[in-house]
Amino acid sequence: MERLNLGQGSGGRETQELVRRLLAPFGDGTPEWEDCALLPGGWGVTTDGFTVSPLTFPGGDLGKLCVCGSANDLAVRGVRPEFLTLSVIAEEGLPEEVLVRHMGSAARTCALGGLALVAGDTKVVPRGQADGLFLVTTALGRTVRPEAPLGMGNLRPGDALILTGPPGLHGATIAACRYEMDVPGLQSDCALLWPLLEPLNGLSGLRCMRDCTRGGVAAVLCEWAEGTGTGLLVEENSLPADPGVLSVADLLGFDPLALACEGTALIGVAPEEADRALELLRRHPLGARAARVGTVETEHPGWVGLHTPIGGVRLLDMPTGELLPRIC
Amino acid sequence: MERLNLGQGSGGRETQELVRRLLAPFGDGTPEWEDCALLPGGWGVTTDGFTVSPLTFPGGDLGKLCVCGSANDLAVRGVRPEFLTLSVIAEEGLPEEVLVRHMGSAARTCALGGLALVAGDTKVVPRGQADGLFLVTTALGRTVRPEAPLGMGNLRPGDALILTGPPGLHGATIAACRYEMDVPGLQSDCALLWPLLEPLNGLSGLRCMRDCTRGGVAAVLCEWAEGTGTGLLVEENSLPADPGVLSVADLLGFDPLALACEGTALIGVAPEEADRALELLRRHPLGARAARVGTVETEHPGWVGLHTPIGGVRLLDMPTGELLPRIC
Repeated sequence: MERLNLGQGSGGRETQELVRRLLAPFGDGTPEWEDCALLPGGWGVTTDGFTVSPLTFPGGDLGKLCVCGSANDLAVRGVRPEFLTLSVIAEEGLPEEVLVRHMGSAARTCALGGLALVAGDTKVVPRGQADGLFLVTTALGRTVRPEAPLGMGNLRPGDALILTGPPGLHGATIAACRYEMDVPGLQSDCALLWPLLEPLNGLSGLRCMRDCTRGGVAAVLCEWAEGTGTGLLVEENSLPADPGVLSVADLLGFDPLALACEGTALIGVAPEEADRALELLRRHPLGARAARVGTVETEHPGWVGLHTPIGGVRLLDMPTGELLPRIC
Repeated sequence: MERLNLGQGSGGRETQELVRRLLAPFGDGTPEWEDCALLPGGWGVTTDGFTVSPLTFPGGDLGKLCVCGSANDLAVRGVRPEFLTLSVIAEEGLPEEVLVRHMGSAARTCALGGLALVAGDTKVVPRGQADGLFLVTTALGRTVRPEAPLGMGNLRPGDALILTGPPGLHGATIAACRYEMDVPGLQSDCALLWPLLEPLNGLSGLRCMRDCTRGGVAAVLCEWAEGTGTGLLVEENSLPADPGVLSVADLLGFDPLALACEGTALIGVAPEEADRALELLRRHPLGARAARVGTVETEHPGWVGLHTPIGGVRLLDMPTGELLPRIC
């Protein structure tokens, strides 16, 4: 009898395979593999469960994370985050002050992003039947581009790939907390992406965007390559790098590309608009380190190649196993 | 330091007070106290976390329950359930077959109710950090009555109160499982309410509806009385009763009115349309035992009175404490 393992919650290959099996009973009516679903009337909707441990970390906490995480899944499809539902699963014995603190953090993030909380639910389960606090959010909003929905299916050979910031900030921050490493300056990139990404919707050559959460930039690259049958070539030298992430990754043997982000997106855009996209991104503090990192090509359909500084190409595979459980 | 207790997850008084404190940071932008929120464009949205134990019970299972529970919160506001999001929080070590079985059950319930699954999320947490499986659903749909939204604020003195079935079937069923009682014929009322309730939207005097989940019929009555400042008088003799519920309630000392339902609604309707409403309800198998159970009055504003067969009136208070954790 197969039992669930932590790798199946990692956001990588095993998660993908598990989700395929879970969706099988739903037959034809299964969601497409994008971050948010598009409904009639221009609405977008997305849902996410957040189980991060520790509940508070440099750069954010569970309350902030659950709002950003869901709102960002809308933002990357050109949907303005407007409404939020919030479901609480809390463990008996949790100090009420902790729960109230995370609600305060969620409320401030909603206010900042112009989101209204419209529905909620609260469950308390007996001690030992949940670990502290889980929050599940659903975000809703309306698309700003009803005529031209974003999605990986729009990618064309020659398109440029842009990363809005260094990979792995959230994952490295959680890892540093978990392993009690003191890494000066390292903090999660947990942030609302809509203010950064909204202006890109004015570009006619914008193809698709994805925030790189569980499984990191590597998982998004692999999903795009496999999902579209195109090849993606990434220049390792061009990837924005954060020294804190590099030191954590180095010490723990992680690939920064497989570490989660919570405020960093990968963007596919027509080559002639790549410079304009970078310019728009760099106007916002969150996009200060945005960089063109790769290209859509035709040579290795379905594969992601990483062009290394010494001139080789290594194939980047979908992350497998679980680097770090409960990252988000 | 206040710590969370199980009573705060009961759906009664303590839940209400906790939720008020949790919503405080959201300031003016807090949801109204109805089962589903109404958004621009005639959309309704609702969210719920499901933590029921055991995962499978007579009449249903977690997969069926999570679809019915969220869809019903739309149905009682005159919103046709159309779309569902589903967030999975599973414990490492759970047999994958269990998860797949509940997905199958959810998928069948969606197919039956015409709901499409549009978004999902899957988290696996380390062994011991969650108990088996929690599912969180958000349901979405469009109202069939954009001009006349349902809500307790519509209640007027003289209105009739109708209950679509006997109180407490779900709660009594879970209690019987938990205490290993063998009660022939007893099963949860877990069901999709839209087919039963949709026809009522043709009545111009339909005021409000609520499915009586955690906290049971008693919690809904008290919320309506307190939320509107009207008095509600219920005739104990007229309440539909289920022998299985009565025997469980009797043995364990529970009030059936405080036991959860998962397919039974309380309805407020203008007195001149009460008979028509009953006729419409009784056409559907789920409404075979529907009954007019009470009246909105003005004598005891904010209170619920239960008119007993021996001629007295006892005040029905919002349930407090926790009869039974993890009922839904």
